[in-house]
Amino acid sequence: RFGYFGKEVPTVVKLLVCNIDGCLTDGRVYVNQEHESISYSLRDLDGIQKLMEKGVTILLISQRNIHPSLISTMNLPCEVEVNTINKMAVLQMRMSEMGLSFYEVAYMGCSDSDVECLKFAGTSGVPVDASTAAKMTDSFSCTQGGGCGAIEEFAEHIITLMESGR
Amino acid sequence: RFGYFGKEVPTVVKLLVCNIDGCLTDGRVYVNQEHESISYSLRDLDGIQKLMEKGVTILLISQRNIHPSLISTMNLPCEVEVNTINKMAVLQMRMSEMGLSFYEVAYMGCSDSDVECLKFAGTSGVPVDASTAAKMTDSFSCTQGGGCGAIEEFAEHIITLMESGR
Amino acid sequence: RFGYFGKEVPTVVKLLVCNIDGCLTDGRVYVNQEHESISYSLRDLDGIQKLMEKGVTILLISQRNIHPSLISTMNLPCEVEVNTINKMAVLQMRMSEMGLSFYEVAYMGCSDSDVECLKFAGTSGVPVDASTAAKMTDSFSCTQGGGCGAIEEFAEHIITLMESGR
Amino acid sequence: RFGYFGKEVPTVVKLLVCNIDGCLTDGRVYVNQEHESISYSLRDLDGIQKLMEKGVTILLISQRNIHPSLISTMNLPCEVEVNTINKMAVLQMRMSEMGLSFYEVAYMGCSDSDVECLKFAGTSGVPVDASTAAKMTDSFSCTQGGGCGAIEEFAEHIITLMESGR
Repeated sequence: RFGYFGKEVPTVVKLLVCNIDGCLTDGRVYVNQEHESISYSLRDLDGIQKLMEKGVTILLISQRNIHPSLISTMNLPCEVEVNTINKMAVLQMRMSEMGLSFYEVAYMGCSDSDVECLKFAGTSGVPVDASTAAKMTDSFSCTQGGGCGAIEEFAEHIITLMESGR
Repeated sequence: RFGYFGKEVPTVVKLLVCNIDGCLTDGRVYVNQEHESISYSLRDLDGIQKLMEKGVTILLISQRNIHPSLISTMNLPCEVEVNTINKMAVLQMRMSEMGLSFYEVAYMGCSDSDVECLKFAGTSGVPVDASTAAKMTDSFSCTQGGGCGAIEEFAEHIITLMESGR
Repeated sequence: RFGYFGKEVPTVVKLLVCNIDGCLTDGRVYVNQEHESISYSLRDLDGIQKLMEKGVTILLISQRNIHPSLISTMNLPCEVEVNTINKMAVLQMRMSEMGLSFYEVAYMGCSDSDVECLKFAGTSGVPVDASTAAKMTDSFSCTQGGGCGAIEEFAEHIITLMESGR
Repeated sequence: RFGYFGKEVPTVVKLLVCNIDGCLTDGRVYVNQEHESISYSLRDLDGIQKLMEKGVTILLISQRNIHPSLISTMNLPCEVEVNTINKMAVLQMRMSEMGLSFYEVAYMGCSDSDVECLKFAGTSGVPVDASTAAKMTDSFSCTQGGGCGAIEEFAEHIITLMESGR
């Protein structure tokens, strides 16, 4: 991805932005007469925790209007931003706040709306059940599906890249 | 399906009618002491959205008496009709309202009660886990199961047919 | 199973007794602070319906103390009996009420507590994910797991046996 | 694991400590606006019951702060201890209370936080979907995943060890 330039700069990821819908969750929405429910895996929270211990800032985003109470029940250890109209704008806003370049940013996504960010970020990953367009972005392809360990797998990939100095 | 006639008319689907039970959902019903819950995949909503952007009207139907509050929680972007006794009657009513012929209609179903409509519609599709009778209707067979991307896959099939002018 | 005797009597199943836990459901129990939830597949309700149309009485049983409100939410088309201490006693009580012999009875089960009934019934079936002891009862082995179409598959097996006069 | 010593002492497990998160459950947490839900399999309760009938004490532990009402809804037949900061400390406290040596203790775990206990216990097991570090502890590896029969499988393994006098 970096061409000649990339060969000289070792990977130092400082920010991971990750789509909630289909990456943290498996994309399923459960509904009853009152509420919707979604689910995540504790394995992915382990992965998020490991990255945070390495100093990586994590931001989970969703285009959906997920209810604040639901987000609060999820009890996530990192920042969450829902109702994002433009994922790329969110990513770049955060990068400018943190003073980061694209090669210090990782992105995980699974749907067509993630393609732009997947192509932009220095390090990118997709769950095995990502959309065709998301898979065709030359991102790291997890063997796990969304909501089932894909974030943990991508987190370990990032840590390996950082520790190997590549 | 069209015989000689079909070879001359390119596919222009204007209406997709789809069974909720086993196509939008995976057929599972979750129950507790108060409510039932069902689930769907955001991938299938993406597929529905893509078809709507191509001008296709989408109607989701169910023979079950799904509670209006549950339908409302689902927050679907298209029309829904539950408690349908006769799916074929619903399909033909809608076709006559819209002034459509069978070759402008797509149908997705998975159970024995969908067989008649699957045989009738110009373009038809079944999830991989459809009933034996539904599978034997010479419909497009998705590699995904109901509730797990089958609608998205069928939507992409329809769009490919329309764009290739077949 | 019938030895010489069985070869002369064609299968006429008049009663199917089926374990709820692991056959109608997949054996999963979902819990939150207030309630437990279980789930079933609409495909299995289709199978139950088909058998009822052939005149077969269906009785779903559970050793668990499933709450009456939960059973009521399930909205099942057949009889349900929970909190059964002795499944064999329930089976034989019902047979005597209906005046049936063992070869007119089908049983579907998946756990060690079903072994006695599986061995006793004239026609018996187990889901693919049944316990080892249940699988070793020389019963019809479904390719589907409990809660995922095993009842529908066993229902079709029973109907085939009845219609082929075997 | 025991070296020369182990060859002389047949396995007599008196205590099984098992991680709830990813062993009793599949690691999924379902959330809505009000509550979280988790799920377990009745097959694993069967396994727990079988071990208890052999005189084995079972203790289910979790590092998570699972709500007491949720634990109560689970209706488990054995002791549960949540919010454990240090699993090894819990294990050793219980061993000293019961006057047990390491070779009388079995441990089942799935995550990095279980590695120390998996290495310590005389008999240890991991679900097929355990973390890499947990899998590398030379424990009995179940063919079933967490929440889907892994405890039942490990229970049968323990019973086989005890009955074969190994």
